[in-house]
Amino acid sequence: MSQSFELLKARVRRVVYLNQAAGLLGWDQQTYMPAGAAETRGEQIGTLSELAHELFTADETGQLLEAAERETEGMEADSDERRMLALLRRQYERATRLPASFVAELSRHQSHSFRVWVEARARNDFALFQPALEKMFDLVGQQAGYYGYRDHIYDALLDGYEQGATHASVAAMFAGIKPALVALTQAIVESRRDESGVSALQGFFPVEAQRQLTLHVLEAIGFDLRRGRQDEAAHPFCANFGRDDVRLTTRYDTAHLTQGLYSSLHEAGHGLYEQGSAPEYEGTVLAGGTSLGVHESQSRLWENLVGRGRPFVRYLLPVLQRFFPDALEGVDAEDLYRAVNRVEPSLIRVEADEVTYNLHVLLRFEIESDLLTGKMAVRELPEVWNARMREYLGVVPPDDASGCLQDVHWSEGLIGYFPTYSLGNLYSAQIWDALRAALPDLDAQIERGVFAPMLDWLQQHIYRYGSKYPPAELITRATGAPPSADHYAAYLQTKYRDLYRL
Amino acid sequence: MSQSFELLKARVRRVVYLNQAAGLLGWDQQTYMPAGAAETRGEQIGTLSELAHELFTADETGQLLEAAERETEGMEADSDERRMLALLRRQYERATRLPASFVAELSRHQSHSFRVWVEARARNDFALFQPALEKMFDLVGQQAGYYGYRDHIYDALLDGYEQGATHASVAAMFAGIKPALVALTQAIVESRRDESGVSALQGFFPVEAQRQLTLHVLEAIGFDLRRGRQDEAAHPFCANFGRDDVRLTTRYDTAHLTQGLYSSLHEAGHGLYEQGSAPEYEGTVLAGGTSLGVHESQSRLWENLVGRGRPFVRYLLPVLQRFFPDALEGVDAEDLYRAVNRVEPSLIRVEADEVTYNLHVLLRFEIESDLLTGKMAVRELPEVWNARMREYLGVVPPDDASGCLQDVHWSEGLIGYFPTYSLGNLYSAQIWDALRAALPDLDAQIERGVFAPMLDWLQQHIYRYGSKYPPAELITRATGAPPSADHYAAYLQTKYRDLYRL
Repeated sequence: MSQSFELLKARVRRVVYLNQAAGLLGWDQQTYMPAGAAETRGEQIGTLSELAHELFTADETGQLLEAAERETEGMEADSDERRMLALLRRQYERATRLPASFVAELSRHQSHSFRVWVEARARNDFALFQPALEKMFDLVGQQAGYYGYRDHIYDALLDGYEQGATHASVAAMFAGIKPALVALTQAIVESRRDESGVSALQGFFPVEAQRQLTLHVLEAIGFDLRRGRQDEAAHPFCANFGRDDVRLTTRYDTAHLTQGLYSSLHEAGHGLYEQGSAPEYEGTVLAGGTSLGVHESQSRLWENLVGRGRPFVRYLLPVLQRFFPDALEGVDAEDLYRAVNRVEPSLIRVEADEVTYNLHVLLRFEIESDLLTGKMAVRELPEVWNARMREYLGVVPPDDASGCLQDVHWSEGLIGYFPTYSLGNLYSAQIWDALRAALPDLDAQIERGVFAPMLDWLQQHIYRYGSKYPPAELITRATGAPPSADHYAAYLQTKYRDLYRL
Repeated sequence: MSQSFELLKARVRRVVYLNQAAGLLGWDQQTYMPAGAAETRGEQIGTLSELAHELFTADETGQLLEAAERETEGMEADSDERRMLALLRRQYERATRLPASFVAELSRHQSHSFRVWVEARARNDFALFQPALEKMFDLVGQQAGYYGYRDHIYDALLDGYEQGATHASVAAMFAGIKPALVALTQAIVESRRDESGVSALQGFFPVEAQRQLTLHVLEAIGFDLRRGRQDEAAHPFCANFGRDDVRLTTRYDTAHLTQGLYSSLHEAGHGLYEQGSAPEYEGTVLAGGTSLGVHESQSRLWENLVGRGRPFVRYLLPVLQRFFPDALEGVDAEDLYRAVNRVEPSLIRVEADEVTYNLHVLLRFEIESDLLTGKMAVRELPEVWNARMREYLGVVPPDDASGCLQDVHWSEGLIGYFPTYSLGNLYSAQIWDALRAALPDLDAQIERGVFAPMLDWLQQHIYRYGSKYPPAELITRATGAPPSADHYAAYLQTKYRDLYRL
């Protein structure tokens, strides 16, 4: 019916495969690549990315896109074809708004700034990083200008990570949960109760047994190891090169059992989402997760809503005892439940518990907004960071390495990215409530290690749609209501007031 | 000085990086890729290869090449620049001589024919493969026509694998060694002596210990594990993506110690050659080995001339005894030497010993030449194969799976490729003689496990030149004489007449 549409798809398929190849080179870089290959690998990935960008932003793509839009005018607005073209239009407009010279300058500064950040963090020297970060905020401000925005400069950036989200919507979301989070955190700290379970996860846990354990759990929850695998990496991540090649990484700590296991569960949430994308979307822009926020909702759903819930812990205990009979001897499910849900305000975002995590994100959201609009100067960052840590979490970093230098994001120009972590938490609780309503036996199923009904529901309501729907629409379709902070707030209150008997 | 030359280099660099990326995807396919990803992986590799081909064969490449040739006319004929342009000219001419429609048809038939071969070999059914092979010889004949040739159609194909080699030169080479090989094989078979050492390599050899052993030996001979690694694969190979990322694969057999170790040594020979390419050639066509034959000379040099020599065996024995104290108890160096040099006519080329190996290649060379010129029909293949096996080696395959269906090459259109294995053997002995002349203490060094002087000589005389010189010129420069079969013939006679006391 539509020759231009087919030609466009063929062109986009090449872009997709180039990006997937670049993704594999990146995965390899963090897993098996010999150290000496780092420099060349950067060049190889850069070349693939450049070629993908050139191919996608070429005039011919724009012409085919226009022609395909005309050809499909008569189709249903909700058809895969028209949704695909809408997404391509959005991506094409964003990609072509940046001048090539700007893209090159930004890319150069990203490499430079990342290297400087690595050194500054290692030396605990914020002053070393300051000029690079100033330039980065300046460049990203220009980038937002190229993209354009209506209400707030932040919107232009955030929209690239979470389509449709705005500074105002994120601020409202945080306003809705911040007082409760701060109060809950404080109440838990003051209660100082229930530390009894902590010792349940101490001992010596050999790497090979942990590897077997995590693979056992991955298979149990439904991660398809015929279309995926798991390796080790210093900073765990999930990468995929199509729905049939989804790779998790994790990191084992022989002194702490939870790190590897919950890191695996988290990445598996990302992985299940990618594996569940409809097969007919392969090689198109509709394949794979629709946004960072929805992606994070799946990693957090499996890690926290499932993984740190009582039913899962009851399923898990005998499994752990099979793999580590000595260390887990005499531990009961309540001990384990308390151990994996310990709340303690701490300095590092990626190690934070469910209650305090979003306060870490809020702080970053506020600061990056103010840096972007100029309300705050980069040189003030350490001071403001430490003051807010004290205000929100009651702890103050002893140095900038464990304070404002801890995250890689800003050094790479990822500004407007942090809120997607909290949006993911919010979505996860809303999806969880919908899931529980649809599957009244869910708790009992999980306790028996039966995950197929749950995975199937996620598959049918979320995973298979890939990127067809923007995040808010997908959440609304899946749960029957637009995204709201209420589910997450209620989840935390119920769970932790019970746990800490508040 | 030369803008076009720089533009051309930048363009070629992209082609090189695309091909390196495709190479990594191929390596991953054979090592870590989940099985379910096979189909998509084919598409990804295909896309990268197509893009590399399009970029290289574009008119703009030709124009830049012409301009760069003019710009560099005043430079020395032996300069890197002019050698690089000569090689690019050769590659450009070959690549642009094939019409795009023919490339597509050949590529489609390669996939088809490979799949049919896999099935035919599994079912031991030559008739199933026959039509695909007939079409393959027809297509490859057309390909030779596009490339053009002067004396023999075979030359057009062989030249692609071994620049400058011809049907006549290969035929002359085989004529020079065939009678001696046949006679030596027969004499050894009739002598039936010295089977005593065979038991030295039987026992149970756990995979992990073999892995540690091979890594120990790789490091000892000078393979740089900071710029390379070793993994396992069903069919061992060496792949590299630049000189700083060279990956060997090997395969362990817990019942036989030699398989993993000598496979490692073989692939390490390829790997050392790639790691030794001059750093300034990176990202250009001068990087990496100059031909299949010279590459094979290095794998065979390390595997056989070094690895199966008495000095190396004396170095190796205490190493083996450290890794496998029980299995190697009471074994002496002479036992081990005989065990790793056992000659026995057999059916499978890749498992053949040094003496019989080239007879396997000769048979393939004769048959593929006759199939190409039409002197022989594809349907006669099983009969001719078996008759020659009896004539050259005194053994007859019980079925086609272990006869004419054993090698993958023809199914993929690799015709004119086999002789490079024998050329490699020839070069290896000639290089070995030059090396021994230059390093009078070589035997004593190897026996002490000191490989640096030898590696350094190879580095200075062969490796660093990458693809700067065509094979015959490189051999001449390194050894002081053009390639000759005499060194290899003398090597075999001396070694095996001594071993078998003939």
